[in-house]
Amino acid sequence: MLVRPLVDQERIQREIETLAAFSETPKPAITRVVYTKPDLEARAYLKQLFLEAGLQVREDALGNLFARWEGSAPDLPVVATGSHIDAIPYAGMYDGVVGVLGGLEAIRALQRTGFKPFRSIELLVFAAEEPTRFGIGCLGSRALAGVLTPESLRLLRDAEGRSLEEVRWEAGYMGSLEEVLLPSGYYAAFVELHIEQGPVLEQEGIPLGVVTAIAAPASLQVSLEGAGGHAGGVLMPERRDALCAAAEIILGVEAFAKNSGSINTVATTGFCQVYPNAVNSIPSQVKLEIDVRDVEQSRRDQVIRQIIQGVEQVCTRRDIRYSVEIINMDPPAKSGSEVLKALVAACGDAGVRFKLMVSRAYHDALFMARIAPTAMLFIPCRGGVSHRPDEYAAPEDIARGVHVLALALARLSLAQERESPKDEPTPLED
Amino acid sequence: MLVRPLVDQERIQREIETLAAFSETPKPAITRVVYTKPDLEARAYLKQLFLEAGLQVREDALGNLFARWEGSAPDLPVVATGSHIDAIPYAGMYDGVVGVLGGLEAIRALQRTGFKPFRSIELLVFAAEEPTRFGIGCLGSRALAGVLTPESLRLLRDAEGRSLEEVRWEAGYMGSLEEVLLPSGYYAAFVELHIEQGPVLEQEGIPLGVVTAIAAPASLQVSLEGAGGHAGGVLMPERRDALCAAAEIILGVEAFAKNSGSINTVATTGFCQVYPNAVNSIPSQVKLEIDVRDVEQSRRDQVIRQIIQGVEQVCTRRDIRYSVEIINMDPPAKSGSEVLKALVAACGDAGVRFKLMVSRAYHDALFMARIAPTAMLFIPCRGGVSHRPDEYAAPEDIARGVHVLALALARLSLAQERESPKDEPTPLED
Repeated sequence: MLVRPLVDQERIQREIETLAAFSETPKPAITRVVYTKPDLEARAYLKQLFLEAGLQVREDALGNLFARWEGSAPDLPVVATGSHIDAIPYAGMYDGVVGVLGGLEAIRALQRTGFKPFRSIELLVFAAEEPTRFGIGCLGSRALAGVLTPESLRLLRDAEGRSLEEVRWEAGYMGSLEEVLLPSGYYAAFVELHIEQGPVLEQEGIPLGVVTAIAAPASLQVSLEGAGGHAGGVLMPERRDALCAAAEIILGVEAFAKNSGSINTVATTGFCQVYPNAVNSIPSQVKLEIDVRDVEQSRRDQVIRQIIQGVEQVCTRRDIRYSVEIINMDPPAKSGSEVLKALVAACGDAGVRFKLMVSRAYHDALFMARIAPTAMLFIPCRGGVSHRPDEYAAPEDIARGVHVLALALARLSLAQERESPKDEPTPLED
Repeated sequence: MLVRPLVDQERIQREIETLAAFSETPKPAITRVVYTKPDLEARAYLKQLFLEAGLQVREDALGNLFARWEGSAPDLPVVATGSHIDAIPYAGMYDGVVGVLGGLEAIRALQRTGFKPFRSIELLVFAAEEPTRFGIGCLGSRALAGVLTPESLRLLRDAEGRSLEEVRWEAGYMGSLEEVLLPSGYYAAFVELHIEQGPVLEQEGIPLGVVTAIAAPASLQVSLEGAGGHAGGVLMPERRDALCAAAEIILGVEAFAKNSGSINTVATTGFCQVYPNAVNSIPSQVKLEIDVRDVEQSRRDQVIRQIIQGVEQVCTRRDIRYSVEIINMDPPAKSGSEVLKALVAACGDAGVRFKLMVSRAYHDALFMARIAPTAMLFIPCRGGVSHRPDEYAAPEDIARGVHVLALALARLSLAQERESPKDEPTPLED
């Protein structure tokens, strides 16, 4: 059997543009927070596209969306691809979306060749990859993989104090959270196509990245409580200004990452909320959220320890009450060797140059790796920019990634056994 | 003529408690932003109290509220007292309110003695003393004094982008802004009763402050723009993190005030807004609002110059675009000598120990001083705390201040000529 998928580059672009209109903010600034109106409208649009492609659609109790192309061996573990469509405030059009609409086009391209899957192929749209609403990323994939239990999901609340339970019900997802967890061995392989969200591929002029590991991300929430008061009324030596303490911590976070000994360590204070936040009031409370990542877990954990010690020192000196909560501190994920081999072979099939690389960004693939052999494909993005309205990936780079994805899904679908690639029944090469 | 006003301490407390119920947040946290429902309801309550006291009530186009006790010489310049009732988010029950309800009780106490004013006495409730909504404090008194012209008022917008014009009309204030400015010489004297908002009176065990000057406040808005991006995707040396730049500036503001050479210099970064403010995004934009005060204008202006130079240096080093806008930089006000003398004499009449002091906090009196001889009375507040729910002034301290205020208003009302205190017709002493 010979598979030569032809990817419809213009159709992907049209669909990316259409999806971008489902946003709280006008294009190119995308704001699409889980369970809000734009998110639900975008899902409705996707479900329509999936049905038009002849796929079987189901959604679980969290809103994870599954579109299935049934194979001739429907009882064998399934081959899957997918990503997310939710977007932080004022994000771009490509993060996540490329893996969803690209995954759909990979399936359609295979369909157009007359390919018949052996193992079923599923396209997943994960709910709430971004931590915007509930403070923790990859809600959907964590739940699928059992990393977040129904009990802990029921405790989650958004910034307005509304529970996950309340908002998912309101959005129409009323099923039981106990049914979200996927049975062990459900998936034979998972491949996520994504923009790089970093500058490496563009700088090196390489059109595709094959991801061998996902860096270990961690995030901390630091709460500071000093003493407020009128900005004119309290003399400087008497102050316990929570924002001045926060400023020292923010600079510490930056310095610890810079001095970790490796260029691969990154740390970011991305969130800072001040109370009461009025020009004539001394800040009495500040909440910071800090993100630390590294490809090496021990180095990342060293930076986390330094940050926590720094918070202690600053707050003791300034007489500020504090708490540090570790929101998540996930271990890194290594790609599945058979999936990696299929991706490398697919690059060969397509004649596409690629780079083996690690991902410093967080992805649903990190959690899918807990329950299935997993790997990722990276597409270059302009200037390494992501989570901004000017995020951009070139149409030809997207189409090239989709082409390789289609070839890899075909290979993986045809694999007779999950663990033995030598049984591959049909070479895909010419 | 002998005046011995008896102040109804319990009635003031009841009215303070009643007024505190008009708030977005439950007592003791008061949130009463100009033109919102609680502000309008609180005004309705006050107008009712003013009418019950037999005062003539009028409101101008901004919502400045005037309650007049007509004197026997209604054409002579008027003696006035008053303050504000708006409150920043999660403020306390006393800031401003003590001067309004205390002013009312001073008038009622004089009425109960049978006192007949010679010059009319007016009680003022200034609109929007707090900068919460439009970013600039003392809107109402600035407009009365001609410091803000109708043209500049029409340019003001709140954080939601709504114009002052729009929201005042919606609140029912539809008059012409051209009529807000008071004619020159309208007031013969203005006295504002206020909590100290600082710890001096309490620490020194003195029940009343007579304010000889109001410190010169200034505020700056600093806008920073770096480069955003995904927290996992951009390596540390390539970052242009606007929040790290802001952190250096916040610490600079603190250090410049501490090192000014005088304990009287205070500087506060009270407002910090981060964009996009998501844990996994590098902050691309930060807006800071900085408040600098000193009793000496030259020292304050030196700190402002240091802050501006610091912003330049930090932003140049970090490759951050910036702008610094001076929101206000008002000159200090000296109290009117005749008004001061009346206050000192009233303290003598009442047998109240007082301290001559300066105010480091911002007050409507600062702008009233542009159009009338002005002074202030300060009441101790617990721990110097203000702009917080635990703000507190003791009922007996309030009543003592109101007593002195009543005596001073009587003296000033009876003064035949504005500029010659020696013509005072009646000694108030026993």
